[in-house]
Amino acid sequence: MDDDRHDVEVAILGPYQEKSKASKAFPSLKNKPPWLVKVLLNVDRRVYYAVALLAFLFVLYVGIQTSPVIVFVFTVCSCSMLFACYLASWVLAKDEGPPEMSEIADAIRDGAEGFFRTQYGSISKMAVVLAFMILGIYLFRKSTPEQEAAGLEKSTLAFITVLSFLLGALCSGIAGYVGMWVAVRANVRVSNAARRSAREALLVALRAGGFSALIVVGMTVMGVAVLFASFYVYLSVDSLGAMKMTELPLLLVGYGFGASFVALFAQLGGGIYTKAADVGADLVGKVERGIPEDDPRNPAVIADLVGDNVGDCAARGADLFESIAAEVISAMILGGSMVKRCKLEDASGFILFPLVIHSFDLVVSAIGIASIKGTRDPGSKSVLEDPMVILQKGYSVTLFLAVLAFGGSTRWLLYTEQAPSAWFHFALCGLVGIITAYCFVWISQYYTDYKYEPVRMLALASTTGHGTNIIAGVGLGLESTAMPVLVISAAITSAYWLGKTSGLQDSQGLPVGGLFGTAVATMGMLSTAGYVLTMDMFGPIADNAGGIVEMSQQPENVREITDLLDAVGNTTKATTKGFAIGSAALASFLLFSAYMDEVSSFSGISFTMVDIAIPEVFVAGLLGSMLIFLFSAWACAAVGRTAQEVVNEVRRQFQERPGIMAYHEKPDYARCVSIVASASLREMIKPGILAVVSPIVLGVVFRVVGQITEQPLLGAKAVAGMLMFATVSGILMALFLNTAGGAWDNAKKYIESGAYGGKGSSAHKAAVTGDTVGDPFKDTAGPSLHVLIKLLATITLVMAPLFLDN
Amino acid sequence: MDDDRHDVEVAILGPYQEKSKASKAFPSLKNKPPWLVKVLLNVDRRVYYAVALLAFLFVLYVGIQTSPVIVFVFTVCSCSMLFACYLASWVLAKDEGPPEMSEIADAIRDGAEGFFRTQYGSISKMAVVLAFMILGIYLFRKSTPEQEAAGLEKSTLAFITVLSFLLGALCSGIAGYVGMWVAVRANVRVSNAARRSAREALLVALRAGGFSALIVVGMTVMGVAVLFASFYVYLSVDSLGAMKMTELPLLLVGYGFGASFVALFAQLGGGIYTKAADVGADLVGKVERGIPEDDPRNPAVIADLVGDNVGDCAARGADLFESIAAEVISAMILGGSMVKRCKLEDASGFILFPLVIHSFDLVVSAIGIASIKGTRDPGSKSVLEDPMVILQKGYSVTLFLAVLAFGGSTRWLLYTEQAPSAWFHFALCGLVGIITAYCFVWISQYYTDYKYEPVRMLALASTTGHGTNIIAGVGLGLESTAMPVLVISAAITSAYWLGKTSGLQDSQGLPVGGLFGTAVATMGMLSTAGYVLTMDMFGPIADNAGGIVEMSQQPENVREITDLLDAVGNTTKATTKGFAIGSAALASFLLFSAYMDEVSSFSGISFTMVDIAIPEVFVAGLLGSMLIFLFSAWACAAVGRTAQEVVNEVRRQFQERPGIMAYHEKPDYARCVSIVASASLREMIKPGILAVVSPIVLGVVFRVVGQITEQPLLGAKAVAGMLMFATVSGILMALFLNTAGGAWDNAKKYIESGAYGGKGSSAHKAAVTGDTVGDPFKDTAGPSLHVLIKLLATITLVMAPLFLDN
Repeated sequence: MDDDRHDVEVAILGPYQEKSKASKAFPSLKNKPPWLVKVLLNVDRRVYYAVALLAFLFVLYVGIQTSPVIVFVFTVCSCSMLFACYLASWVLAKDEGPPEMSEIADAIRDGAEGFFRTQYGSISKMAVVLAFMILGIYLFRKSTPEQEAAGLEKSTLAFITVLSFLLGALCSGIAGYVGMWVAVRANVRVSNAARRSAREALLVALRAGGFSALIVVGMTVMGVAVLFASFYVYLSVDSLGAMKMTELPLLLVGYGFGASFVALFAQLGGGIYTKAADVGADLVGKVERGIPEDDPRNPAVIADLVGDNVGDCAARGADLFESIAAEVISAMILGGSMVKRCKLEDASGFILFPLVIHSFDLVVSAIGIASIKGTRDPGSKSVLEDPMVILQKGYSVTLFLAVLAFGGSTRWLLYTEQAPSAWFHFALCGLVGIITAYCFVWISQYYTDYKYEPVRMLALASTTGHGTNIIAGVGLGLESTAMPVLVISAAITSAYWLGKTSGLQDSQGLPVGGLFGTAVATMGMLSTAGYVLTMDMFGPIADNAGGIVEMSQQPENVREITDLLDAVGNTTKATTKGFAIGSAALASFLLFSAYMDEVSSFSGISFTMVDIAIPEVFVAGLLGSMLIFLFSAWACAAVGRTAQEVVNEVRRQFQERPGIMAYHEKPDYARCVSIVASASLREMIKPGILAVVSPIVLGVVFRVVGQITEQPLLGAKAVAGMLMFATVSGILMALFLNTAGGAWDNAKKYIESGAYGGKGSSAHKAAVTGDTVGDPFKDTAGPSLHVLIKLLATITLVMAPLFLDN
Repeated sequence: MDDDRHDVEVAILGPYQEKSKASKAFPSLKNKPPWLVKVLLNVDRRVYYAVALLAFLFVLYVGIQTSPVIVFVFTVCSCSMLFACYLASWVLAKDEGPPEMSEIADAIRDGAEGFFRTQYGSISKMAVVLAFMILGIYLFRKSTPEQEAAGLEKSTLAFITVLSFLLGALCSGIAGYVGMWVAVRANVRVSNAARRSAREALLVALRAGGFSALIVVGMTVMGVAVLFASFYVYLSVDSLGAMKMTELPLLLVGYGFGASFVALFAQLGGGIYTKAADVGADLVGKVERGIPEDDPRNPAVIADLVGDNVGDCAARGADLFESIAAEVISAMILGGSMVKRCKLEDASGFILFPLVIHSFDLVVSAIGIASIKGTRDPGSKSVLEDPMVILQKGYSVTLFLAVLAFGGSTRWLLYTEQAPSAWFHFALCGLVGIITAYCFVWISQYYTDYKYEPVRMLALASTTGHGTNIIAGVGLGLESTAMPVLVISAAITSAYWLGKTSGLQDSQGLPVGGLFGTAVATMGMLSTAGYVLTMDMFGPIADNAGGIVEMSQQPENVREITDLLDAVGNTTKATTKGFAIGSAALASFLLFSAYMDEVSSFSGISFTMVDIAIPEVFVAGLLGSMLIFLFSAWACAAVGRTAQEVVNEVRRQFQERPGIMAYHEKPDYARCVSIVASASLREMIKPGILAVVSPIVLGVVFRVVGQITEQPLLGAKAVAGMLMFATVSGILMALFLNTAGGAWDNAKKYIESGAYGGKGSSAHKAAVTGDTVGDPFKDTAGPSLHVLIKLLATITLVMAPLFLDN
């Protein structure tokens, strides 16, 4: 760790010291790229185009041998990615604006890229270690009877799993990088566009968000599809004596695990970074010194702006990538096992359904993004429309098309003669999912928007002091878990029931479609993921643009435009979190069904129930719930500790250099960037390791206990118990943390808008305290939790053989 | 509700207004006792003695016909209660001190008794309604095959259950009243004794606590024993063709439910009262005006002192009563069902074991209390010893004797020829319980005492502001759940394993002692309940005494003594909460095993597992966990809202009557008392009803869902799922809330002791905010949660027939 700290300091601090004597107002924190990057940058672009084309043709060739559905998926994904590149080039073609802006943007970009490099350096080292562990485990584990029958070697399986894991991790990393790459370039262009027109600024931010959203979703689907097709061809699946296609999805679990693994550390590191900087900057700047947010005099302001990019953009990209990957793979596993039980002739429709849904997701989201156009009068500075209305119009277009596409896909892929009305039942399941998503968005808006009662009561509680503000916020957050849970409960029960009554039966005439019904509902929920992610990415870009405008001291009317966009961004960010946790709840229910399927396959013992009346399983459940509490504790505490360091540093600078407050002296931004970067790298390790190690330890310990007390499968059962309790507690805790944080933020905004004495009143001070407390809740612990839930599920899927007696 | 509010206002405000012109510094808030009390007060004491003697003889007569063990229990309980009465008379014989003290004490007593009367008026109305509901349900429910075979009428069963319920509710109420009755009389005597000697003050507080502890524990045991013996005789159990003794404990569940029902509302109402007054008084007094705690100028100070009595004394009495009742009854049920499966000849030992353990508990606790004596030099004012050391010496005596008594009891009652070493295994289970209790106490001390790292880090976090203090406290609280959960997990697993290997087998040779092993461990944990409750009750009495000393402006050396006692009281209070939640965790595991036993009996279908892979059961679990979050939310929010009312009232008084701050004008204490009383009565209803109604609704809804989807027992399974998830979440949430609250409190005390700038520094302000937030956590929501856990368990036991298809 000390090494890392040193790297970061040299990387970020070193150049600053060199250039600090120069006249530049905002020093570039650039660091030298590694030699590999240099070499790659010197290669002619046309070489890359040729390589990409060849890769595509090869992939297409493999796809053709697998299934026409795969070809369809490849084509759609490639087209969407091309469209995404068009969006990016449109954004990059915009002007960066005057030098005082681009200098700030450069500082932000360099800080963000420097942190990203160091962070992903650490993550990749851990991933490689883990890959070797997986390899070791798989070389010594049992194979399933089906795999043995298909003549699969242990070593083949091991390499397949490790390969999937590494590919998942790599793609997750790229997804994060893409999100950040465009964000640090788009922010200044949005600021500059805001000097011309509100509509143009909106458009730049939206298209930049659209680029990363389409790339992230496209890469998820493409990755799974490529792996699936490659394994299909490599293992000559479905040929005589070889593996069946229904077994294939189980080989993909490594991909999901890799994705979750990277996403967790990305979210933790980024979340700690962004919030420590934010809290630290606010506590001294706003509360003690009374200067506005993003004021150039605040030494932590650049760190705060860098944080938005590494925390919100990079982490959210990795996070959504992981969400979709986990959901697609678990749905494919469930589809496969259902087909096996029903003995359907053609498995491909049920297995490949999730890939098709997300291909359509790309298309409808692209149309939605494209439907938002510039106005005829590009020179107009007036704010013509509420940006939220514009974004929601695009969402309506996307949603309408998604419903149609969903219905069409179910008829295309899920129609089977054995149960002619099954496709219609599944289409209804999809509708359940879409409605659930809508309810989640509405509920999180109700609890976090100051148009409604809850946040207004919270603002009122701020008038009686810091204490009552916090109590009311905690109360609000805890209460806000009720409605989403009722919605999720209704969704799970009804989708399961719709699936069960679909008419699909096993050989004994028992209905088997229930779980697949919930899987389809989850897909329905995520069927507009592309557009939702676009809106989400919009937020931090607009936020950053606002920061640049504030720091470069632009005129009031420019600031108004970016403030407006920022406010909309806050709302979309909050609603996306509701959406993410809802889909995580549904997806993890699928994942542990997949886990039980897998354990049955490996052990040869039917594993269809998790009996919590067994003391060990109950205890494992207790431990699982505790894991959620402990993880949240460490995530929050990490932010608290790092923020304290920032507070002390900022206080020190203000005290030692009194000229800062009078604009006479330039604060030392790089010092804050360096402190936050090294602290968040250090702090992300403990909770991350906890998440990865504890399910493995628990499974192995209970496996041994089971061997001693002669209870077969005890390890696997205990892990299942842990998984389910952790999921339930995780959902509730994440809802609590996200909503409380969002509500505190907006209660503060409500007061700033003039209520209860407005800015500077004692109510405002109390509200700022609440906002500060909410920061790690809503942007560090909360969003990490739903990654954690899925990580636990994918980890147990990959490590299942460890928990079984040999 | 409006009526209630009116009553309270008249009761408390009315007389104050009459006397406000008189010269008394602290107005008596006395209200007229109802006519029944008047009549009862006029009866000659000797009549009561005669009635008590007759009752005892009758009970003894019934006991003789049941079992010699029952006679033993009766005798021990009666002797302990006599000893308790001796303690009370010793305390009451002390002098009340000068009039300025006794006037304050009168005001506190009248406020507390007034609130108690109104609160228990509301609770008893609800209890009567619920009793009619139970009657209705039981008149239309099925009987178990055993009950039918024994020729038990439905109406008999219904009346038995309702009678048990009402008796449980009544005793729980009395337990609360006794705790408060002695506390409001002992407080002033402690204050007065502190003017003479520290040791004497300690002794008065301790013996007053000992009185209520012995009465509470004695009444629990006596109540269960009397019911058991009466039903035994009335139903001629164990005679030919009649009911078996092993079935009898199931008839007692109503008693536990009644106890939990009253305890929940007592804890909620009292908890909201005490913390709303405390928070309100602190926020204006300490934070805004900078006057010390319990300063007579603060208009909310009397309400705060009243709150200690109704919140900590009355509520904790009802709470411990309920804890022991639930644990005893569930252990008896499990003992009965184990005996039935093992086909042992003599059931009485296993069934009556819990009663004997608590009889010994009374004896050893009484010895422990008696072992603390006055010093030879009663006039010495010097503080000779740390009071904590004195209390712990007594505890060591109690603990040592308890271990001996436990070992003896297992040999006496649990020895059976079928498994000669079983008693020793169970003795070890008891030891596991005792060790668990010790670990819990140690862990809660580690996380809440400022001698250790965690609280010191929290104090450090206060130096960087309100925000970092709250973040650090939340982090600390969440983290503190880990160790207790590990301990509980180890305890459950090892006690189960010890029980399982005890050698007791069913007719098929399968081991059956596992669950009873956990039951014995729970008893071990509670085997010193009497002394622990004594130390707990000590806290609020010392706190109140300190308040009286402060308000009557006694010299510094008196204040030092009461401050010292108060500090010790805070530690003992915090550790008792750890103890209570640990035993609740174990007890609820028993209770849901008892529930499954009961469902099996009623439905005639074996119900031995709760499979959370069934979507409906999983959903019920999700809803169960959500219930915990929602309940905590409402409890916290209730305190927040009421505190806001207090803040506004106190601010109003300071503003309208500037003479208060200069001691020229007397604040209107009664107005604050009235506001808090009526608000807490109003606010306790919503969370209380939620707790009672939701398990019933959930069970009935899933019963209907089960009927529609053709899944037998779905209602019962879903309720079991809910119960287990709610238990797990409840344990974690309670640990979080209790520890975070305690840590904030002591971080503040640490700063007040001079660290980081001491009183008045900005770190102190931040720490006071934390303390304020912690108040509803640790004294309202936290302690209500473990009552809630057991209420859910007893409710489902009583309502089980509702969830089954007829």
